[in-house]
Amino acid sequence: MFQNFDAPARSQPIGGRLVSLRAELGKHGLSGFLVPHSDEYQGEYTPASAERLAWLTGFTGSAGMAIVLAGEAAIFVDGRYTLQVREQIEIADFTPEHLIETPPHAWIRPRLKQGDRIGYDPRLLTLAELRRFEHAAAGTGAGLVPVDENPIDRIWADRPAPPVGAVSLQGDDLAGESARAKIERLQAVLAEKGADAAVIAQSDSIAWTFNIRGTDVPHNPVALSYAILSRDGPPTLYIDSRKLSNAVRDALADLADIREETAILGDLERLGGSGARVLADPNTTPAALLRALIAAEGTLIEGSDPVTLPKARKNAIELDGSRRAHHRDGVAMTRFLAWLDEEAPTGELDEIAAARRLEAFRAEIGEEDGMPLADISFDTISGAGSDGAIVHYRVNEATNRKIEPGSLYLVDSGAQFRDGTTDITRTIAIGEPTAEMRQRFTLVLKGHIALATARFPAGTNGAQLDTLARIALWQKGLDYDHGTGHGVGAFLSVHEGPARISKTGTFALEPGMILSNEPGYYKTGAYGIRIENLILVHPPEPIEGGERPMLGFETLTLAPIDRKLVEPALLNAAEIAWLDAYHARVREALAPRLTGRALQFLLASTQSVVA
Amino acid sequence: MFQNFDAPARSQPIGGRLVSLRAELGKHGLSGFLVPHSDEYQGEYTPASAERLAWLTGFTGSAGMAIVLAGEAAIFVDGRYTLQVREQIEIADFTPEHLIETPPHAWIRPRLKQGDRIGYDPRLLTLAELRRFEHAAAGTGAGLVPVDENPIDRIWADRPAPPVGAVSLQGDDLAGESARAKIERLQAVLAEKGADAAVIAQSDSIAWTFNIRGTDVPHNPVALSYAILSRDGPPTLYIDSRKLSNAVRDALADLADIREETAILGDLERLGGSGARVLADPNTTPAALLRALIAAEGTLIEGSDPVTLPKARKNAIELDGSRRAHHRDGVAMTRFLAWLDEEAPTGELDEIAAARRLEAFRAEIGEEDGMPLADISFDTISGAGSDGAIVHYRVNEATNRKIEPGSLYLVDSGAQFRDGTTDITRTIAIGEPTAEMRQRFTLVLKGHIALATARFPAGTNGAQLDTLARIALWQKGLDYDHGTGHGVGAFLSVHEGPARISKTGTFALEPGMILSNEPGYYKTGAYGIRIENLILVHPPEPIEGGERPMLGFETLTLAPIDRKLVEPALLNAAEIAWLDAYHARVREALAPRLTGRALQFLLASTQSVVA
Repeated sequence: MFQNFDAPARSQPIGGRLVSLRAELGKHGLSGFLVPHSDEYQGEYTPASAERLAWLTGFTGSAGMAIVLAGEAAIFVDGRYTLQVREQIEIADFTPEHLIETPPHAWIRPRLKQGDRIGYDPRLLTLAELRRFEHAAAGTGAGLVPVDENPIDRIWADRPAPPVGAVSLQGDDLAGESARAKIERLQAVLAEKGADAAVIAQSDSIAWTFNIRGTDVPHNPVALSYAILSRDGPPTLYIDSRKLSNAVRDALADLADIREETAILGDLERLGGSGARVLADPNTTPAALLRALIAAEGTLIEGSDPVTLPKARKNAIELDGSRRAHHRDGVAMTRFLAWLDEEAPTGELDEIAAARRLEAFRAEIGEEDGMPLADISFDTISGAGSDGAIVHYRVNEATNRKIEPGSLYLVDSGAQFRDGTTDITRTIAIGEPTAEMRQRFTLVLKGHIALATARFPAGTNGAQLDTLARIALWQKGLDYDHGTGHGVGAFLSVHEGPARISKTGTFALEPGMILSNEPGYYKTGAYGIRIENLILVHPPEPIEGGERPMLGFETLTLAPIDRKLVEPALLNAAEIAWLDAYHARVREALAPRLTGRALQFLLASTQSVVA
Repeated sequence: MFQNFDAPARSQPIGGRLVSLRAELGKHGLSGFLVPHSDEYQGEYTPASAERLAWLTGFTGSAGMAIVLAGEAAIFVDGRYTLQVREQIEIADFTPEHLIETPPHAWIRPRLKQGDRIGYDPRLLTLAELRRFEHAAAGTGAGLVPVDENPIDRIWADRPAPPVGAVSLQGDDLAGESARAKIERLQAVLAEKGADAAVIAQSDSIAWTFNIRGTDVPHNPVALSYAILSRDGPPTLYIDSRKLSNAVRDALADLADIREETAILGDLERLGGSGARVLADPNTTPAALLRALIAAEGTLIEGSDPVTLPKARKNAIELDGSRRAHHRDGVAMTRFLAWLDEEAPTGELDEIAAARRLEAFRAEIGEEDGMPLADISFDTISGAGSDGAIVHYRVNEATNRKIEPGSLYLVDSGAQFRDGTTDITRTIAIGEPTAEMRQRFTLVLKGHIALATARFPAGTNGAQLDTLARIALWQKGLDYDHGTGHGVGAFLSVHEGPARISKTGTFALEPGMILSNEPGYYKTGAYGIRIENLILVHPPEPIEGGERPMLGFETLTLAPIDRKLVEPALLNAAEIAWLDAYHARVREALAPRLTGRALQFLLASTQSVVA
């Protein structure tokens, strides 16, 4: 199993760690220390060796920061974790604060005084984060002090070793473009920007560029590493050599200089000393790297990671792979939904059992297709009844609930197959839904359809499109408190930039981008609804009588949407036609792969909604 | 008449002016000079005395800039004026450039060399504009040199005197809040921002703050002036004393220190010298003012004009006034439409005759109501046939066309009444429209209705709502190249910030804001369609079954929408219901004020569209 359902630990045994840390800081003349959740790669998932925040505080959430001062300490978490943090930490040690409303740099400013030395690990803060703290300290007489070795690492006796997950090559048959060609394209971008080199610190950008995949962290098939692209010569890949088999190393050595990670600081100093102009993204690159460059008098060109946009524009081979992965995933989902349809009425099924069964169906179809399930793309959200109303719910043994008749069950899950990453949410009525459930579901469906069928000119961004998914709910005084869509990688991160469909999505959508379409509705303490398919931005297609090219979407995800929850009277003719056509497409695509009860379920659940 | 239909002059007689200017620059050791269209108040309209760009180049458009160097000169205009500028200027003297694609600061940079002294009038450039030029000059060895007296003014022999239009008070019965109360509110904003004072350079902000109106420029009832707000004491109003009657002066003297405009520079130097922290908007405040402050070592707090937002949130009295103004304007528009309905079939009516008649109807209803037409709110866009497809069309004697049967006629116009500013566009079928015209009009109408009926949560901005007005067109491969809505003042500017409904409108809409709702469609060389009503953001109203407060709009404009252009088969039931209800409301509101043919026209043109 790729998912761990253990309940989060409580913090009792770790109370002494704060005392040890303060003693350690004292030895080095530090009056405080910053402890971010992030590791030195700033990715969504961190390896166990980098869980310093959890080790120190007990808090196991996926984002946050602690600040330890001599007389007090605080922990900063976002809205997802305000309850969890209080259950996990020792309140006597750490004051919980809201990461957005009271950001760490704002919290620390009034607490700084002349002569304070606040330590930080420059590998774990991005340059942009460091600047916020430096700005907060300006004028206080306090200083921010980078440490060479993280003091937590010195006192964390049984700290796990950093991962050395095996690296594999993503063949051109799946990547659709050779690493050599990608590197040449990136070199042209550097030339255009007047940069001699670029620091690439995002592991998924490195994976895309070199056509490699790794196994260092859960759910995200990247190899933790850094790279420096050079405008005129081969790039350098900085990676722990233990991750590379001889075959992989030989293939990479044709493209790049391969060096140990520790070599990058010296290389950046040399690059800076040569007067190079180096492009890097201050929002994703560790301060340690850019400080080395700047200290050596290199010129930092601040800009977004040059890989982000080409990576987001999937090529035809990647899209073919994604369509295959979605077809496969649709078979697994439909087998799961058929199984659920049979099992759930007993009322004995629980959230963990359902999530396990779904993962097993994905593993099974991977075996059938000779395309093994590499991982799930994130921990499955398996929410029965009121748990479905918790947007970021992750079931564990302590919260596990029965899936009961008369309730809704929300399941948001995905697969990492070598040919594509999937992400799908379905909401299923267990037994008879209420009229209110049907009305809410149908309003969410109207938003989903409005986005799926939208045509729009080049240059349109996600904030402009987000409204289409919400307006049916808004008209009824309803809304949901999350974005409508995030970018999705090609056997890479299930949350990928730069474009997203949300109230704040300012990046224009471009052909080849894969995004999610996932409006929802949540009734606290009662039930949650979300309908999520992945959609692909397709290039302009002629519109009869039209005058301007318009982009649009192709829906990639293939699985029935629960017709029991649809109130046809609330849909217009075009919306009914979309739903029926989608179901006809699902039936046609999946029926050849299904038998027995699963096939019967597919045929029944893809009938016209007005039949 | 408030509108002038003279054809723009050609430039022949003014060729010698460029020679004179260069000689004048030589006398003062300047190698070049910047000539913006803007005057020292940075408003939408400039008085004749400030038309330096037109005097020098012949170009009479409402925005642009010239740069005169020793060996060459260029004129920068936006997309509206690329044709007009070539007709008006002497190409041998000025090279036309695109203001957005080749902005003046980008154009000048490669032309600057060591020792160049480029003059500018610091009253006419905002601080933000000056910074762009200073940035462009950085490293070239050239310098930007402020002049004390504009060299054009020295050689412009018959330059008109600056306007000294009479100032009047806007009574509390129309303003809804005393100037004293407004000033106290603004002082609280200064305190919150840690500012000792604020420079207010926008004339409409001054008009709102002091409850005054003026007559210095066409169509915009402001008094050109400056003000400095003080956190702890009375404000100072800098205004030519000849604009003030004794009664107005006495009333203002109760609120503020009144000083001549020329005194502001010295006052800012004193303020700076006292170490004051002064709030000002670098995008709207002349560089001259802020340079005086900074040179005296005052602290500039850069921020938006603190009046902009309170001015945009109209109070209940202002909204009552606006509703009365729109009712009155609706009577005038309906009389005009009835007249047009009778006259247009002859084919003898032209664009100017129609615009004159419409203005006369507005003047007439103002007289009837004892609320005289103070001005039109902008030059009427009276576009027959293909002229309707020119978004910024202004008819003059040279372009005047007949309104012909079989064509569409687009008329975009507005009134300045003391109790409110209006802005309305109607598109009328002259004779029988084609099926394509009806289809296009109905798609535009769908967008208009979608916006008019939208509900949305607080925090929603104009870019998010803009999509609602476009999606019906987008789905058919159509679009329009202008924003959907601009803010409108209360007997003030017809284009008012900060909110707007457009692809780039990032300011959240708030209750009390008045905006336009004006989607369109334009077929170059054939016809133009636009349907514009003003809409008011209303506070949350309960929605049955809803859970969250939602803002919405009240449509203020009252005039029939041409039913001949509506294709009911393209509307859904809710859209038909909106149109019929709107027309019923128009009929009920206006019928008591109409008689004879106008009443007959109203009754006929407000029937149900599916009757």
